[in-house]
Amino acid sequence: MDFRTDDHTLALIEQVRGFLDEHIRPAEAVLEQQYAAAADPFDVEPPIKEELKAKARAAGLWNLFLPDPKWGAGLTNLQYAPLAEITGHSIDLAPETFNCSPPDAGNMELLALYGTEEQQARWLRPLLDGEIRSCFAMTEPAVASSDPNNLQTTIVRDGDDYVINGHKWWTTGILRPHTKLIIVMGVSNPDAPAGQQHSMVLVPRDTPGIEIRRSLPVFGFPHHAYGGHGEVVFADVRVPAANVLGPEGGGFAVAQARLGPGRIHHCMRLLGHCERAIELMCRRAHERVTFGTPLAEQGVVQEWIADARMDVEQARLLVLKTAWLMDTVGAKGARVEISAIKVVVPKITARIVDRAIQAFGGAGVSNDLPLANYYVEARYLQIGDGPDEVHRRAVARRELRKYAG
Amino acid sequence: MDFRTDDHTLALIEQVRGFLDEHIRPAEAVLEQQYAAAADPFDVEPPIKEELKAKARAAGLWNLFLPDPKWGAGLTNLQYAPLAEITGHSIDLAPETFNCSPPDAGNMELLALYGTEEQQARWLRPLLDGEIRSCFAMTEPAVASSDPNNLQTTIVRDGDDYVINGHKWWTTGILRPHTKLIIVMGVSNPDAPAGQQHSMVLVPRDTPGIEIRRSLPVFGFPHHAYGGHGEVVFADVRVPAANVLGPEGGGFAVAQARLGPGRIHHCMRLLGHCERAIELMCRRAHERVTFGTPLAEQGVVQEWIADARMDVEQARLLVLKTAWLMDTVGAKGARVEISAIKVVVPKITARIVDRAIQAFGGAGVSNDLPLANYYVEARYLQIGDGPDEVHRRAVARRELRKYAG
Amino acid sequence: MDFRTDDHTLALIEQVRGFLDEHIRPAEAVLEQQYAAAADPFDVEPPIKEELKAKARAAGLWNLFLPDPKWGAGLTNLQYAPLAEITGHSIDLAPETFNCSPPDAGNMELLALYGTEEQQARWLRPLLDGEIRSCFAMTEPAVASSDPNNLQTTIVRDGDDYVINGHKWWTTGILRPHTKLIIVMGVSNPDAPAGQQHSMVLVPRDTPGIEIRRSLPVFGFPHHAYGGHGEVVFADVRVPAANVLGPEGGGFAVAQARLGPGRIHHCMRLLGHCERAIELMCRRAHERVTFGTPLAEQGVVQEWIADARMDVEQARLLVLKTAWLMDTVGAKGARVEISAIKVVVPKITARIVDRAIQAFGGAGVSNDLPLANYYVEARYLQIGDGPDEVHRRAVARRELRKYAG
Amino acid sequence: MDFRTDDHTLALIEQVRGFLDEHIRPAEAVLEQQYAAAADPFDVEPPIKEELKAKARAAGLWNLFLPDPKWGAGLTNLQYAPLAEITGHSIDLAPETFNCSPPDAGNMELLALYGTEEQQARWLRPLLDGEIRSCFAMTEPAVASSDPNNLQTTIVRDGDDYVINGHKWWTTGILRPHTKLIIVMGVSNPDAPAGQQHSMVLVPRDTPGIEIRRSLPVFGFPHHAYGGHGEVVFADVRVPAANVLGPEGGGFAVAQARLGPGRIHHCMRLLGHCERAIELMCRRAHERVTFGTPLAEQGVVQEWIADARMDVEQARLLVLKTAWLMDTVGAKGARVEISAIKVVVPKITARIVDRAIQAFGGAGVSNDLPLANYYVEARYLQIGDGPDEVHRRAVARRELRKYAG
Repeated sequence: MDFRTDDHTLALIEQVRGFLDEHIRPAEAVLEQQYAAAADPFDVEPPIKEELKAKARAAGLWNLFLPDPKWGAGLTNLQYAPLAEITGHSIDLAPETFNCSPPDAGNMELLALYGTEEQQARWLRPLLDGEIRSCFAMTEPAVASSDPNNLQTTIVRDGDDYVINGHKWWTTGILRPHTKLIIVMGVSNPDAPAGQQHSMVLVPRDTPGIEIRRSLPVFGFPHHAYGGHGEVVFADVRVPAANVLGPEGGGFAVAQARLGPGRIHHCMRLLGHCERAIELMCRRAHERVTFGTPLAEQGVVQEWIADARMDVEQARLLVLKTAWLMDTVGAKGARVEISAIKVVVPKITARIVDRAIQAFGGAGVSNDLPLANYYVEARYLQIGDGPDEVHRRAVARRELRKYAG
Repeated sequence: MDFRTDDHTLALIEQVRGFLDEHIRPAEAVLEQQYAAAADPFDVEPPIKEELKAKARAAGLWNLFLPDPKWGAGLTNLQYAPLAEITGHSIDLAPETFNCSPPDAGNMELLALYGTEEQQARWLRPLLDGEIRSCFAMTEPAVASSDPNNLQTTIVRDGDDYVINGHKWWTTGILRPHTKLIIVMGVSNPDAPAGQQHSMVLVPRDTPGIEIRRSLPVFGFPHHAYGGHGEVVFADVRVPAANVLGPEGGGFAVAQARLGPGRIHHCMRLLGHCERAIELMCRRAHERVTFGTPLAEQGVVQEWIADARMDVEQARLLVLKTAWLMDTVGAKGARVEISAIKVVVPKITARIVDRAIQAFGGAGVSNDLPLANYYVEARYLQIGDGPDEVHRRAVARRELRKYAG
Repeated sequence: MDFRTDDHTLALIEQVRGFLDEHIRPAEAVLEQQYAAAADPFDVEPPIKEELKAKARAAGLWNLFLPDPKWGAGLTNLQYAPLAEITGHSIDLAPETFNCSPPDAGNMELLALYGTEEQQARWLRPLLDGEIRSCFAMTEPAVASSDPNNLQTTIVRDGDDYVINGHKWWTTGILRPHTKLIIVMGVSNPDAPAGQQHSMVLVPRDTPGIEIRRSLPVFGFPHHAYGGHGEVVFADVRVPAANVLGPEGGGFAVAQARLGPGRIHHCMRLLGHCERAIELMCRRAHERVTFGTPLAEQGVVQEWIADARMDVEQARLLVLKTAWLMDTVGAKGARVEISAIKVVVPKITARIVDRAIQAFGGAGVSNDLPLANYYVEARYLQIGDGPDEVHRRAVARRELRKYAG
Repeated sequence: MDFRTDDHTLALIEQVRGFLDEHIRPAEAVLEQQYAAAADPFDVEPPIKEELKAKARAAGLWNLFLPDPKWGAGLTNLQYAPLAEITGHSIDLAPETFNCSPPDAGNMELLALYGTEEQQARWLRPLLDGEIRSCFAMTEPAVASSDPNNLQTTIVRDGDDYVINGHKWWTTGILRPHTKLIIVMGVSNPDAPAGQQHSMVLVPRDTPGIEIRRSLPVFGFPHHAYGGHGEVVFADVRVPAANVLGPEGGGFAVAQARLGPGRIHHCMRLLGHCERAIELMCRRAHERVTFGTPLAEQGVVQEWIADARMDVEQARLLVLKTAWLMDTVGAKGARVEISAIKVVVPKITARIVDRAIQAFGGAGVSNDLPLANYYVEARYLQIGDGPDEVHRRAVARRELRKYAG
């Protein structure tokens, strides 16, 4: 066992951190202004995003998430982890700057793994170039979507087409102008055995029959930079049969390939939230004096800081070990570890950020600091991509299996 | 000791709950529409509010919070508690409907206790009639305002006037058109002994020199219905010396009289959040099926519900006992108990609501349910009106004094 | 509603507290010596116990727990609560001194409610006089005894006798010399409908066929003063049919009548543990200096003390309300509230005591203080008389029923 | 970074686990019998211990903890970690079987690092051979010993001797017959600068003037297998000046060298407690049925198991990383990480074990399972070797220093 970070990764860490400090943090206020200036912020693509992307690509910091060197940076998950973490410091800008933001990263991964050459040419190439954006329509309001067997959207073969009918929500990104592709999951083979009834299809955003009802806020945040979270109705939406992604009936397997990396990437970025929250809390602790003593010398605040540091060190090691497992035994072999970090990391992030908020008082709950937004991100991820209860169950069942019968 | 609720209160509970169900809940969507229709929601007073107030006043449900029958309903704190709790179910509408909403209720209490006849005629009367609104400017961004000794706003006597200079924030309500009065706390007698240096002055909203910089959101919520939370600069704001509220130099004592009831009223309403969250969680538990079983039959969800019920029963009893203490020994005598509930109730509310959110998944973090807003309310109150750490300290110090030397 | 304690109870509180300070606390060391001097501490009845009992009876502080004035002090549960709490300060001595200790108190309650005149003459009278002790054999090692339907001990009618076969454990008190009576619960009517299959029978301790295998320690504590926790085998134990307690097949109903008061009495005493732990923690905080500051001025310790005070105030109110419910609607009507306090009180006691232990460091985990023993008591009661999970389930189910269908 | 365990360590893991299963677990009952058979269990050295030691030494599993190949097995801390963890499964026997038990291991480490040749010949050799045992007298009842500046025991030079006077407690191991050496820490140079006032001296157990007042139990456990925890008075205890260990006045530095490894070894063994507790809990979950369902299928129990697994995976990684740091930058460089695991591991162990206890009900709190003892071990270690509060402070201060002025 060896806990040393390799030199290539160390160099990348320095480069990404430098880029963040030099280019991205100063751009945060610019982004906010460009959204504020818009009549409808869901109707604009703020120019600052494109400027940053151009700079990042020029610096060679592009598609860092994609392990396949044919398409991306060719880093292992273990190498990508500290880079993704740094992007978590500036959640609205940094991930997209390096073309590593959800849901596009996961979608690109799918297209790289399962796309036909044509699909890759039409969708993957412009996504990798950061020219278009995409979204992923899986969750449905009417059913517990954490069990995909419950999904009710239908994808019915009709001649050379599929016809899609269904009601989705939390389709993140669908409200951005750049978004041109929706990957839709639904029931294509209702009579097949369980686990082989679903398919994914590629649906151009401008296909007739797609109605975006509204964008869902999260704790009051509209999440413009994410392209919102759409509630979407598909009414007789018709796409060519060639638009199926991966094998027909193979939607579950394809989804697993997407969700594993998606979940660990979320965790990596949340660790960045944690680190920035700790930094903010410490700086505040040095500056703020109550009852004659700086917060930094008060035992309760020291306890917050110590607990935060201990939580984040442990969680990061588990994330890194999980990344290493994905690199060595694959996402499927690391499935339960991914469930574990998916529970652990949002929980500690929420707790750490909550205490940083408390250290700041009123400023903490306002938008003068990124903390309220970090909290909401962490809270949302206790539900999104599978609620904690489902992931805990997966962890428990593997443990119990060791001693069964 | 007797845990039975008196008949008068029982009748009022029934009446208020009936009013809530019949008039207020249906109005929630109307309020939202009226705000949504406004170009700037801080620029409107939605007509639905006035309609509800007229109905409530006609029904005799008016100024329920004011124990002095000369001005208000003449209920004890113990009697008011369950009524305030019910208003917590519909936080944007119900408290104001009965003219019991913060910060006006606290301001009316101050004016009733300390106002001169002139002050009462000019400000208290229209407040009691629900014709104008008011706000309270105490917290400052530059200092730890939980220790009022730190406040830096100056109130300097100049001939027959006071001249106010200072920087406040979290001045809740200041952005509503109806708001006509600001009660400002600041240093008037810097050379007096500690505790006698501050005064409160009544400042008409339209006095020159008042600049509202912006409204602070809480998490992502702008809180239009509250009139926002203003950041306000007072630059050479001049009011007549007769506008001092209570004795010059008596600001601390006056503030204590305001904060005690203010804090317990918050707690009462939060209990209403808890009850509605439990109801929502139970209904969801009956309806939602995951992995073949309704949530209602799953042990983890049952544990959430049981813990919620146990938490809220205990917290309510402590709130009621504190109300009884205020009725029997006064707000000052109940000071430490008020600190205790100020810590306990927001904490359990946040926990209960958080679990209700989890039971709902995506809907829970959206605005389709009041839960995210309840959570933010409870979280904010771990900071507002004194952060938990300050109140815990008060509880600990009384306990420790019992065994000192 | 009225939170004032009545004068009669106030006078009793003063009397019991005075008795504790004057007679019981000084006797704690004596008790320890008398046990230490015994070759087998399970073989002695330390004389100090009898001396204290005589004094308490002379002072009129006797059988305080029994609400029926025909047999006991005639106090309501609400009145008894603060007295039982005080006995919790000195757990090995005080409850028995006032003849209020488990399991005898519960057994006396059963005999008073369900005993025939003969049973009362033979067993209840000497129990009320403190001359003999008794125990209650319900829990079985082989099954989840929290669901009494699982109990496997058989009570078979054979002519004019019952013949008992079974394996019990956690039969508290069975190892004391004074113990003369065992109340045994088992299946008497296996063919009856569920809920009517069990009976209780009175079994003289010296009946042939009773084998006490051993005493079970709790976290290393042998619990001599409790008469141990016996593992007992009943092999063809034969008693007259007249020894059935209550109706044959009525064991469940009888058990409920016993368990309700038993559980609330445990909670009352645990509150006494809490109060003494807080007192000890505060005294320690004043005396101990670390890193130049008394613990009393350190924020973390203040937080422990404040949380302890807030927890215990809330829990006590819920215990008192439950006692009031038992007085007004009966133990059955208060069933769910009893479940609630049975979860709440051991949990907060364990937490409070745990922190008091931490404040004392090494002394805390030793036996120089009662804290380790208090902790074990509280921990045990998260299992004994029904584990938390079963009681939480009861609370949740009532809550859910409100919104069913 | 690489999370793979090296082959040498894998082979040792298999060997140690095999030895545990084959030889140690069956010996647990034998040990208990041999103690039970003794008139005074502090007066015996159970023969089974010597038999196991002989077998382990013959198998080459001896002094595994000592990284210096001159004296011990020559394993790195990283390699020793999983082996020490396995010894945690059988806490009363396994560590000593491999001659790796505290406090001897720490004392041997000190003698290896700081002992003169003579000291090593007289004390280290027989300790390494498992022929004698030793103890470490540092903590004092009168002062907060977590800050060693507070220690009051005096070590006064008198001609060619030192004369020791002081009052110690929690001197673990002192009551075993085999214990021949006490390492005493005290003030030797009161006029030196802070940090250079203390020394350690080697005191033969049979030196006149040593009075063992008693053994302190932990909760109710007497800890015979540990040789008890002695309260000891040193009255004019005289040893040759040559018995100083390391430089005079260098006691702090020497203590640090001892405490670092001592603390991490405790953490490694606690992870073994966790693993055995999880195994026991899972087996119980499969066997026990309540309300018609095996515990293994109940969500609450699944949550306990999942949380346990997630906690232990994270904590182990932090222990391993700390071991790696000790191997690469030394114990001093890993000081804060050692503080972190010293807080984290006992906390999660206590929680995991507590839930395993709950899964077992009555059996859990008895001695039929190792769980109650594990709990006590974990609880004690939140105090022993520095209470959590001191270690949290160390973690917080390093964090805060990063952002200081």
